[in-house]
Amino acid sequence: MTEKSLAHKVVDQMFDHDAFSQWLGIERVLIETGRCVLRMKIRKEMLNGFGIAHGGITYSLADSALAFASNSHGRKSVSVETSISHTVAMREGDEITATAEEVSISEKIAVYYITIKNHSGKTVALFKGTVYRTSRDWEV
Amino acid sequence: MTEKSLAHKVVDQMFDHDAFSQWLGIERVLIETGRCVLRMKIRKEMLNGFGIAHGGITYSLADSALAFASNSHGRKSVSVETSISHTVAMREGDEITATAEEVSISEKIAVYYITIKNHSGKTVALFKGTVYRTSRDWEV
Amino acid sequence: MTEKSLAHKVVDQMFDHDAFSQWLGIERVLIETGRCVLRMKIRKEMLNGFGIAHGGITYSLADSALAFASNSHGRKSVSVETSISHTVAMREGDEITATAEEVSISEKIAVYYITIKNHSGKTVALFKGTVYRTSRDWEV
Amino acid sequence: MTEKSLAHKVVDQMFDHDAFSQWLGIERVLIETGRCVLRMKIRKEMLNGFGIAHGGITYSLADSALAFASNSHGRKSVSVETSISHTVAMREGDEITATAEEVSISEKIAVYYITIKNHSGKTVALFKGTVYRTSRDWEV
Repeated sequence: MTEKSLAHKVVDQMFDHDAFSQWLGIERVLIETGRCVLRMKIRKEMLNGFGIAHGGITYSLADSALAFASNSHGRKSVSVETSISHTVAMREGDEITATAEEVSISEKIAVYYITIKNHSGKTVALFKGTVYRTSRDWEV
Repeated sequence: MTEKSLAHKVVDQMFDHDAFSQWLGIERVLIETGRCVLRMKIRKEMLNGFGIAHGGITYSLADSALAFASNSHGRKSVSVETSISHTVAMREGDEITATAEEVSISEKIAVYYITIKNHSGKTVALFKGTVYRTSRDWEV
Repeated sequence: MTEKSLAHKVVDQMFDHDAFSQWLGIERVLIETGRCVLRMKIRKEMLNGFGIAHGGITYSLADSALAFASNSHGRKSVSVETSISHTVAMREGDEITATAEEVSISEKIAVYYITIKNHSGKTVALFKGTVYRTSRDWEV
Repeated sequence: MTEKSLAHKVVDQMFDHDAFSQWLGIERVLIETGRCVLRMKIRKEMLNGFGIAHGGITYSLADSALAFASNSHGRKSVSVETSISHTVAMREGDEITATAEEVSISEKIAVYYITIKNHSGKTVALFKGTVYRTSRDWEV
């Protein structure tokens, strides 16, 4: 199996069981080893008391991107620490895209930067995630 | 108006318009100036591809607690940076409680620690949030 | 060997070889399993371009506290992600105390909160550190 | 005064009074508006109990880069939250370079990514810093 095929099989398996990513309406734009691009649209039920997207929505999109990018190597990986800055408010109907890049990987630990942009290309959130790479492989 | 009454009026107003906190099923256990306790239950549609609560769910609960605790002073406050460690996995039916404590406050910036515990009192997530305190007051 | 004795032996060994902690003038106030208290004084060569303590100084004190507290169990542990908020400026001559508390520990990952206070008890910095616990023990 | 000239004047003034950056042996490789590159060499007194560079050393280099890049606009800016992952150990004699990039800027808040690489181009630390932009200007 090629690397790319492995990445796809792992993420397909994760996504098929990921009820919350499905509720969010996440679409997979690109899946590669250590990298992914996801897209979703802000709906009315995702807004907070300021009438803008709840911080948990952009975090959730980024956290799904972290899970898919880090597990795409075929090794089960779990988040140990994540941080996010919400830099621009989003409103109902806005389409957002998260791009996950692997910025460091070692035997046990890997770090990802995930940038979320809106449809006009403006950065709306910056996410940094660190995962622990277990010794268990995905069965695909 | 007393401080406590102000805190309640602000958070009531925020919560009434906060569609996503309502979707999560968040209950307000305690609201005080600079402090709050929130509770919710993990539902099937909140699970991820590992069959456990999606990281975005606990983040969202903590982020709501950050918003309520920081705005409870009556000044509009917005998140600038947040981080979370997911330390214990949660399953469907688990009830979780988030407690927000104000650990630092100055004219422009305030910092909160938010601890999420499960029903048996075990810490399941640790959240640190920094807000920018604008110069605009809530009208209550 | 008791737990407390093990913690002391490990930290003694680390500290004796830790040239930078010695340059900082760090004193060990308390060493326990998973916990420590360190103290130091701000010197002229530790100031930055604003005439206050460089952010790297308080970070360094907290990072030493993280290393001592996490290794005190006898297992070699390495930092994977740390964050710090500098909440109050410090000046030459100020004495600061860092207290490290273990807020979560599992087989592979542990999380610590480290609070730095000045001599009047005011919190000047808030640090959160995550370590990876290797499978190698300290020889003491 | 051009933007670039303003950036240089502000950073010169900061650096001339920054005793700790001088102790570290920091050299300014590039100073631009919202961006800078700094370089230094790991010395014996910068090592920790593992015989590698203390985490406070790389943090300090990144924190200086954050201060220079964020103040280079001419507006006094102060760090509100910073995080760092130490991904590769450094030894005595290693030369390291920090590159600060402005990834988000608004009226009051700006965010920077700072990447530290060793002389062979390998990333050794990843730093994310958020500053509060005061309303006071540098007098240059």
